[in-house]
Amino acid sequence: MNFLHELAVKGRLVEEALDRYLPPADHYPPIIHEAIRYSVFAGGKRLRPVLVLAAAEVVGGSSAAVLPAACGLELIHTYSLIHDDLPAMDNDDFRRGKPTSHKVFGEAIAILAGDALLTMAFELIARCTVDGLVPAARVTRAIYEISKAAGSEGLIGGQVVDITSSGRPLASEDVLWYMHEAKTAALYRAALRTGAILGGGDEKSIDLLGEFGRHFGVAFQITDDILDVEGEQAKLGKPIGSDVRNRKHTSVTVLGLNRAKEEARRRCKLSLEALAGFGSEADFLRAAAEFIIAREY
Amino acid sequence: MNFLHELAVKGRLVEEALDRYLPPADHYPPIIHEAIRYSVFAGGKRLRPVLVLAAAEVVGGSSAAVLPAACGLELIHTYSLIHDDLPAMDNDDFRRGKPTSHKVFGEAIAILAGDALLTMAFELIARCTVDGLVPAARVTRAIYEISKAAGSEGLIGGQVVDITSSGRPLASEDVLWYMHEAKTAALYRAALRTGAILGGGDEKSIDLLGEFGRHFGVAFQITDDILDVEGEQAKLGKPIGSDVRNRKHTSVTVLGLNRAKEEARRRCKLSLEALAGFGSEADFLRAAAEFIIAREY
Repeated sequence: MNFLHELAVKGRLVEEALDRYLPPADHYPPIIHEAIRYSVFAGGKRLRPVLVLAAAEVVGGSSAAVLPAACGLELIHTYSLIHDDLPAMDNDDFRRGKPTSHKVFGEAIAILAGDALLTMAFELIARCTVDGLVPAARVTRAIYEISKAAGSEGLIGGQVVDITSSGRPLASEDVLWYMHEAKTAALYRAALRTGAILGGGDEKSIDLLGEFGRHFGVAFQITDDILDVEGEQAKLGKPIGSDVRNRKHTSVTVLGLNRAKEEARRRCKLSLEALAGFGSEADFLRAAAEFIIAREY
Repeated sequence: MNFLHELAVKGRLVEEALDRYLPPADHYPPIIHEAIRYSVFAGGKRLRPVLVLAAAEVVGGSSAAVLPAACGLELIHTYSLIHDDLPAMDNDDFRRGKPTSHKVFGEAIAILAGDALLTMAFELIARCTVDGLVPAARVTRAIYEISKAAGSEGLIGGQVVDITSSGRPLASEDVLWYMHEAKTAALYRAALRTGAILGGGDEKSIDLLGEFGRHFGVAFQITDDILDVEGEQAKLGKPIGSDVRNRKHTSVTVLGLNRAKEEARRRCKLSLEALAGFGSEADFLRAAAEFIIAREY
């Protein structure tokens, strides 16, 4: 298992599909489609959609059939970044080494580009059935679970707690874990469950892959927090130290570097344990968990 | 057919369902759920969800079965109002006689409340199947059509052209019609088609009801423009004259009052013609079209 090679192959499938599914940049009204493509093709590891494909393969499903839904997950991730970067939120000027959407297109178009991506995400997931690739009942279930994970009790709930708790004393460590679980892990969990549901997995596989995704997501968020302290700006594509400047509560500010690293390793281990019942078909996921712990970007 | 009575009865079904489906205001994190409820229960005629129910009934379907999706359409409408009112967009302080979301909760929470409502809309539509009310294939088709109508080629596209054309000379009358069709009519069309699809209508009925919705939506937007000039603030719940102050292009500024009224009547007539093949089961829709032309709020 050459993880980076396999990640590149799957990531390329996702890139090509995104390019096919998104309207061209000159589609009327052009400014919104330009803004959409600007953020979607600003780089990024495509981890969430790649994990959708991988989960479908683990349960014996076809990764080609779940490709539209995988792209949908990436659009949700991209929308959340555009809105998080807005002046009213984190007010970030750079993302992945490029000016953020609102710096290039203005606040109104950035808000609308995020809205459009979130809307288009569900269009793409529904396409799995509309295009005849996946039975409708699996798709409605996936849409239900993804919208829960991305909503006010998941991704958005986490962002609410993030921005409302910044610069104030943290009530308890539980708030940190809520943020990590809601803002990051919920969508990873949903990505894995989506792949497993659409790929036709049984309930036990869906749950186990979801647990993998959840712990993987928390480990991912912790390493994100660590990189904001120990990372290199050139590799990350964004200034380091932004969490401290924005007076954010992160696993590093709350737990300290050592405990944060320890917790990341513990979550990585838990994610691997969720895969114990799977054979070599889950090797890509195992490698992904190892990669996250060691990542530099 | 006592239209206002029937509208109140159906509207009440929608109100009660929204109250059931939305998380309670103190659900963690409370500020987002408070903001969601503040805007969803700020009044409004509930026309879009009521038309979903009505369309399902026209094709012989159960309005109870499509109620979650009807609520979903209302959430999409509410999210679009919250985001339209933002300082970066129309910068409106009042809506339906109450301070707008960002005036009460701040910009960040208003953006996130809109995001959460848009996300929850798809959760509710998917619930039609998850709750065992409607076959999955109908729901995936409805989700596909709704996301198209609400996306960058529909609702959002219309808003993009609206804000980018304000205060500048209008390239042509076509731009006005694009705005009306995309920003308003697309979602009405989708509401009617959703009711017809989920209710099990045949393709011809789906198309005809969609055409009714489209013309109804344009007539609705024109009367909205007219009310912004001739309406009474007390009945509308918002200051009149805001379109001129915001240097918006509307059917009144582009066509003049007389031609705008004539076009509204023409669209009303076209909407009624789309219903010609239906019997008394479509009387509520016919009355809705007459109501829109004569409305004062």
